[in-house]
Amino acid sequence: MLLVELRLARIDLSSQKVREEKIDDKTVRKFIGGRGLGAYLALKEIPAGIDPFSPENKVYILTGPIVGTAAIESGRYHVIAKSPLTGILGDANSGGQFGPWLRFAGYDGVVLEGASETPVWISIVDGEVKINDASHLWGKGVFHTEKLIREEVGVEKESLGSVLAIGPAGENKSRIAAVMNDRYRAAGRAGLAAVIGSKKVKAIWAFGNRKVMDEIYDKDRYMKEAKKLIKKLMEHPISKALYEYGTSVLVNVINTHGGLPTKNWTRGTFEKAFDVSGEKLAETYLKARKGCWGCVIQCSRVSEVPGGPFKTPLSEGPEYETIWANGPDTMVGDLAALTKVNYLLNDMGFDTISYGSTVATLMEIYELAKQGKLPEDKAKELYELLGDIEPEWGNAHALIELVWRAAYRNRIGDLVAEGAKRLAEYFGVPDVAIHVKGMEMPAYDPRAINSMALAYATSNRGGCHLRAYSVSFDVLGVPKKFDPLKVDLEKVRLTKEQQDYFSFIDSLVVCKFNTFSTGPEDYVELMKAATGWEDFTVEELLTTGERIYNTERLFAVREGTGYKDTLPKRLLEEPLPDGPAKGKTAKEPLEKYLPEYYKLRGWVDGKPLPDTLRRLGLDEFLYIVQ
Amino acid sequence: MLLVELRLARIDLSSQKVREEKIDDKTVRKFIGGRGLGAYLALKEIPAGIDPFSPENKVYILTGPIVGTAAIESGRYHVIAKSPLTGILGDANSGGQFGPWLRFAGYDGVVLEGASETPVWISIVDGEVKINDASHLWGKGVFHTEKLIREEVGVEKESLGSVLAIGPAGENKSRIAAVMNDRYRAAGRAGLAAVIGSKKVKAIWAFGNRKVMDEIYDKDRYMKEAKKLIKKLMEHPISKALYEYGTSVLVNVINTHGGLPTKNWTRGTFEKAFDVSGEKLAETYLKARKGCWGCVIQCSRVSEVPGGPFKTPLSEGPEYETIWANGPDTMVGDLAALTKVNYLLNDMGFDTISYGSTVATLMEIYELAKQGKLPEDKAKELYELLGDIEPEWGNAHALIELVWRAAYRNRIGDLVAEGAKRLAEYFGVPDVAIHVKGMEMPAYDPRAINSMALAYATSNRGGCHLRAYSVSFDVLGVPKKFDPLKVDLEKVRLTKEQQDYFSFIDSLVVCKFNTFSTGPEDYVELMKAATGWEDFTVEELLTTGERIYNTERLFAVREGTGYKDTLPKRLLEEPLPDGPAKGKTAKEPLEKYLPEYYKLRGWVDGKPLPDTLRRLGLDEFLYIVQ
Repeated sequence: MLLVELRLARIDLSSQKVREEKIDDKTVRKFIGGRGLGAYLALKEIPAGIDPFSPENKVYILTGPIVGTAAIESGRYHVIAKSPLTGILGDANSGGQFGPWLRFAGYDGVVLEGASETPVWISIVDGEVKINDASHLWGKGVFHTEKLIREEVGVEKESLGSVLAIGPAGENKSRIAAVMNDRYRAAGRAGLAAVIGSKKVKAIWAFGNRKVMDEIYDKDRYMKEAKKLIKKLMEHPISKALYEYGTSVLVNVINTHGGLPTKNWTRGTFEKAFDVSGEKLAETYLKARKGCWGCVIQCSRVSEVPGGPFKTPLSEGPEYETIWANGPDTMVGDLAALTKVNYLLNDMGFDTISYGSTVATLMEIYELAKQGKLPEDKAKELYELLGDIEPEWGNAHALIELVWRAAYRNRIGDLVAEGAKRLAEYFGVPDVAIHVKGMEMPAYDPRAINSMALAYATSNRGGCHLRAYSVSFDVLGVPKKFDPLKVDLEKVRLTKEQQDYFSFIDSLVVCKFNTFSTGPEDYVELMKAATGWEDFTVEELLTTGERIYNTERLFAVREGTGYKDTLPKRLLEEPLPDGPAKGKTAKEPLEKYLPEYYKLRGWVDGKPLPDTLRRLGLDEFLYIVQ
Repeated sequence: MLLVELRLARIDLSSQKVREEKIDDKTVRKFIGGRGLGAYLALKEIPAGIDPFSPENKVYILTGPIVGTAAIESGRYHVIAKSPLTGILGDANSGGQFGPWLRFAGYDGVVLEGASETPVWISIVDGEVKINDASHLWGKGVFHTEKLIREEVGVEKESLGSVLAIGPAGENKSRIAAVMNDRYRAAGRAGLAAVIGSKKVKAIWAFGNRKVMDEIYDKDRYMKEAKKLIKKLMEHPISKALYEYGTSVLVNVINTHGGLPTKNWTRGTFEKAFDVSGEKLAETYLKARKGCWGCVIQCSRVSEVPGGPFKTPLSEGPEYETIWANGPDTMVGDLAALTKVNYLLNDMGFDTISYGSTVATLMEIYELAKQGKLPEDKAKELYELLGDIEPEWGNAHALIELVWRAAYRNRIGDLVAEGAKRLAEYFGVPDVAIHVKGMEMPAYDPRAINSMALAYATSNRGGCHLRAYSVSFDVLGVPKKFDPLKVDLEKVRLTKEQQDYFSFIDSLVVCKFNTFSTGPEDYVELMKAATGWEDFTVEELLTTGERIYNTERLFAVREGTGYKDTLPKRLLEEPLPDGPAKGKTAKEPLEKYLPEYYKLRGWVDGKPLPDTLRRLGLDEFLYIVQ
């Protein structure tokens, strides 16, 4: 039987030494790869209580056992580190080409340890890791960096090799900086690029000829299983909608449900929703559709704004979350402006969700100042720091100019770069920042889509729609339709199961857009063919996900922060003033869902019980909860 | 008799050691201070042929013997170093408060030598020089830097002490970066901030209690002489116009003469000239008038754009040259946009003349690309580097957004930061850059004001209106009015005399706006009272200026570059298509003026003759020309 092993390159930036490490079959079976393996290694290796910017933090850039195989959207990689935004475990994943190319280059993952004194970039080619001087790249945008590295290595064709890079945001340790690859793809959330920046790593180039399909246990069977999944995927109406209108097909859908957070979450509908929708994009700036490595959906947009003040060259995006955070949340209703700000945010290397949300927070703070609701000294300081920036609701120019200020921490940008929570705290109005555990929330109001109350509150990385995406059943009817405004405890079970299933998916690492059309049962046969684990079952798959979810939670428990599962005050106390969910708060759903959820998880007050850990084979971490 | 000595702090950034040096009375009498002393020391100490960014370059920040005395606009300082823009001696001076406060702090000048490995800022307080860590200031804008330093030293009142700083432009070694002080004042030209940046010096704080008036030879007599000069100054109509409308009173004047370079010097008049004039500024955004240390003219503008896309908070400027380079030269006719771009350029630390001129150059290159007049590969690269920027004539948004890109060398900004000459050369169209000796030219077309042909060509620092300002006789009628379109060899003598007189003025260091109302004879009595040099004469004053002018020229001769006195091809070959100077080029004037000028100077082909150096007491530099 083939042993499924993962090969990591441990790169110590302090000593500039590289060490190879094999992750054995047993560990792979327990944590798979990507998000799961990263959580496990981080919990074992990152000392409790460290500053996320200290050299003791580590960055795990991991693929998994089927990444880069010719099947089922398997082109992703995951990044894990202690997050400077939340202070707990941060993780994010990204598509594009980097994950596969990292494997082709000879490694299934890279661990960045220590810190370099001067900027470096890392090349990984056919198993050889080199650390190179990057002083000429430091300060450069993501696009320019990719171009310069490709020139340096002599591979200009975009379909060959892949560059992962941080932008100025990451260099300048913005807590909302995104890890970028292939220019437009982002492992966006939790500010992990800032950790890479703190290690003075500018980029990674991956290229090579390893044949990962040859490492599949039974290739023919694997391809047969993969084709089944692909067929399901291609036939699913959501896949078709994603092809047609991209992720921003959601703008009108969520707006109609009254759950499109508008004006920094003070409303649930946006009058200009259609103007910034996927349908509108398809009519205007859309030039082509594009997919990540080996993808059949092609949900990525290739857009161009041909002229005018928001001219944007042919480039990828904008995605739904980007449009929402920079659009409805800030009241900017101009799709050209959103296309441009997306382009700049990619180049500077920002998490577009956190950035837009932070600007929306700033706009509310500015409004408070003008209404005399900020202490006089704070208002004075705000105006001074703003200088020529006027962050009024809907001001697209302010939205765009703040990108530069945030990237280079110029005046008010120095605070925007810190994210919404720290910005609002600085001005003495913490409740204006809409976040969970320090991370800005994405584009679904849990007052209108009540299952999201639980999904957000219990997310291990803070405000997130990708630990569980209960929008799928509350709005999209997958696996079945619920009333998004009605409290229904079946949603709790589904949310918990989704969290576990997604943990597995993120560890493989494959695309979550598979999960509309496939369930855990579909992956069992694929996994058997890939690994030879013939006794693999749906139960094991979900238990593996649960193990991963608990491992992440243990990181927070050990840190003594980030395991309290709640929502921002505004969502609990301020009823939505508009739309179909008018009058609703997220208080009742959260209060009803949470106890049931803890029961299902075997947790008390957000902490796993010792028996839960034993059941999941996490005995080595019992010390954290005992 | 009092010995006039100047006390310098030599700061070796490499060893972090400080050494005091006295410049003796004899040397002061030969080179005065400021520009003259700087040229002399630079020629002696900076090795020939070095890279301006190497630690062997030195930066001289010098005042002079009457700076900070209660008289005659004596609030300036001068910066001298080998210029990264021109490759020859670069020098620039600035008003505001820094010059006086440097003297009050106990030193008449500072020399920055070597290079620090990490960012530092320097505090000079009552004779004590300290080198402090500036890692928290690196990357910050000029305004923020001043604020943070004032907080750190605990002196927030703006009239106490002074901060000299570089912005991100200087840090990132932009060849058009300006040394800034008191937030809005710039020793702008020749990219000297980039040299300071290469030494990793972010800022200098000067504060102290030295009484410089006590060092004046005869205080009463000095005050009596100073008052005479001030009276003349205050009564002069140009002083009054400068108070009323600021330096941008010139916009309409120069436009009327057809000498306002428009659309990158392809035209001599701008249809929106009035919209961007000092008169218009006074009607719109002007909030107050302001002067430098001890100044009675108050030519500085305090402006505010209260709202709209070009909102600008209360801040200083814009000046005439800034308005011209960013306005007529780029065809931007919106004073609000110009006020904003000026504000941003100050904060990022750019030379506003060179920046606007470089953007105008980029606009012409972009036009050539669109017309298919650029090689295909170059056009493709241009579009790629531009990304979302569309530098069409008159596009104010592009003008503004390029500030950030240039400051942080993002894509096209990486080339804009290099200045017009290198930008145009990069795209294979060197003649599109309008410069002399690598430095972008200021706002007077020598085809319409022909004496400026000589003034520009023979300037020792490249394209400059401040070595001789023959606009004063060709346009303003000081000392007498000439026909600006007529070749008249008397202008040659006046230009040469002005160059010498200005060299003296820049060495004192006082404001050139004195020179409209006063001549060398007025300064002789003041100098006697200040120094006790009772045998000082007009002849000695002008010979001193001539000595300085020749010393600067020797730097270029020794470098083997920058002593060929000519003008851009466009000005020599393309007749002006519009305005009163329609049909004129600068070819005839330059060809007629230059031989006469060399005769007066005792130069051949731009090089001083040995006898000239002997006559001026520059024997120690004979080796350069022999």
